[in-house]
Amino acid sequence: MRRSERISAVTKLLVDRPHQIITLAELGELLGAAKSTLSEDIAIIRDTCQRLGLGRVETLPGAAGGVRYVPLLSRQVMRDVVEQLVRSLSDPDRILPGGFLYMSDIVASPHLLTRIGELFATRFYEREPQAVVTVETRGIPIALMTARALNVPLAIVRRSTRLSEGTVLTMNYVSGSARRIETMSLSRRAIAPGTRVLIIDDFMKAGGTARGLVDLMGEFRAPVVGVGVLIETLEPRQKLVRDYVSLVVLEAVEEETRTVRVRASEWLAEDDSPSDGG
Amino acid sequence: MRRSERISAVTKLLVDRPHQIITLAELGELLGAAKSTLSEDIAIIRDTCQRLGLGRVETLPGAAGGVRYVPLLSRQVMRDVVEQLVRSLSDPDRILPGGFLYMSDIVASPHLLTRIGELFATRFYEREPQAVVTVETRGIPIALMTARALNVPLAIVRRSTRLSEGTVLTMNYVSGSARRIETMSLSRRAIAPGTRVLIIDDFMKAGGTARGLVDLMGEFRAPVVGVGVLIETLEPRQKLVRDYVSLVVLEAVEEETRTVRVRASEWLAEDDSPSDGG
Repeated sequence: MRRSERISAVTKLLVDRPHQIITLAELGELLGAAKSTLSEDIAIIRDTCQRLGLGRVETLPGAAGGVRYVPLLSRQVMRDVVEQLVRSLSDPDRILPGGFLYMSDIVASPHLLTRIGELFATRFYEREPQAVVTVETRGIPIALMTARALNVPLAIVRRSTRLSEGTVLTMNYVSGSARRIETMSLSRRAIAPGTRVLIIDDFMKAGGTARGLVDLMGEFRAPVVGVGVLIETLEPRQKLVRDYVSLVVLEAVEEETRTVRVRASEWLAEDDSPSDGG
Repeated sequence: MRRSERISAVTKLLVDRPHQIITLAELGELLGAAKSTLSEDIAIIRDTCQRLGLGRVETLPGAAGGVRYVPLLSRQVMRDVVEQLVRSLSDPDRILPGGFLYMSDIVASPHLLTRIGELFATRFYEREPQAVVTVETRGIPIALMTARALNVPLAIVRRSTRLSEGTVLTMNYVSGSARRIETMSLSRRAIAPGTRVLIIDDFMKAGGTARGLVDLMGEFRAPVVGVGVLIETLEPRQKLVRDYVSLVVLEAVEEETRTVRVRASEWLAEDDSPSDGG
């Protein structure tokens, strides 16, 4: 096999399995190449990804070592993704009676979801989450793509108890905005004690659902290392969780003037983020 | 930029966006290379992917042309994925009281889900689906990964009506096994008339839910080009939908002997499939 062929194959295998370590022995067996040759190939791939802002290729030394691809987005790509979101959400055709916003198509586009997942993964990567937790339904696609970019399992909290989940932990909580009593439940098997959990959801108003998820993780003795939401509303300004990250802020939906006021969240404008992959 | 660097970059961009056409002009701008040079690079990537069974790289001529990566799995990889599923499902620790099977972890692993999505995409690719439709909740991860591999949008049918979905089409149907009346609803905006739809779900017993989804798509005037389920039960043998594809067949869960009898679906044993990508 020629170098260019090996490089194509190794790039494919790495990009296909974000955050997963592939050993040089595995690659050697598949491609019939010596470790020293493969190391040179990997260096070329690493430099190319870095130069073009396509993510980070990490080599890990030692017996358990190998190489992995970490889909870290550059700050510019993150801004582009969120700008695309803001543009799309601003479309007045999204306005529904009662000031609701149609958003199902946002969580319908696999390509946009992949980028959003990589964005959350980039933001929370350094907190080393070991699982992503969300609550049904609309948060699931975002949470899955985040779990994919981090290569950790996804746990889906249910709104009702299912026989097919086995022993579940069920919790009642008060939704922050509507002050309704809601139920969430999760199988005992889904999260082991001590698992570092990243909570991902699509929408935060008062933060009651996120608060409920944080409390539920407390019952599992699983530390929450981050909370990420796609969209937060400007009001109420006081949320029921403190430490969370949103991508866009929905300021207002004005039915009369058919205007959606939405903007990127402030942290995306900062320049000194440690998670800058570009 | 050297050839090996360009090849790494082009492979990354292609694999990252399954089924999406990238024009030579785009690549040329990004990498500063002539079209003829890029064509040679792409030929190398195409041959490598083909040789190693890593999917298909297709070049499309003409003004709207370019190149795209189609994640077609070889029959061997498909069998390996399903074998892994069968092994995992056979674990007696999955048995829950009442003969239920704990399966939430199956739809929790991003890497396995990616492969399952590619498997369904490989199976249904030639029917040219334009959208993937599923019903909440546990089918969503599988459906999303199938939509990702096909690069088509995902529509999630809800079990209840939501204000934030706008005008919805709501349908009652009778679940095949429990003979309960269930509700499903989908926003009018989610599927345009004429959209070729692939239905994906996690589990089929009598097929009542799949039948409901097929009927619902009829109301949207959207032709169903395929139905895929992760797991079907052996009984009842007569399902409420005719033309469907499962990956594994759950024959029996025996609580007393703590045995799960599960096997790969028959079509996977055939050798003459036209969708063989390897």
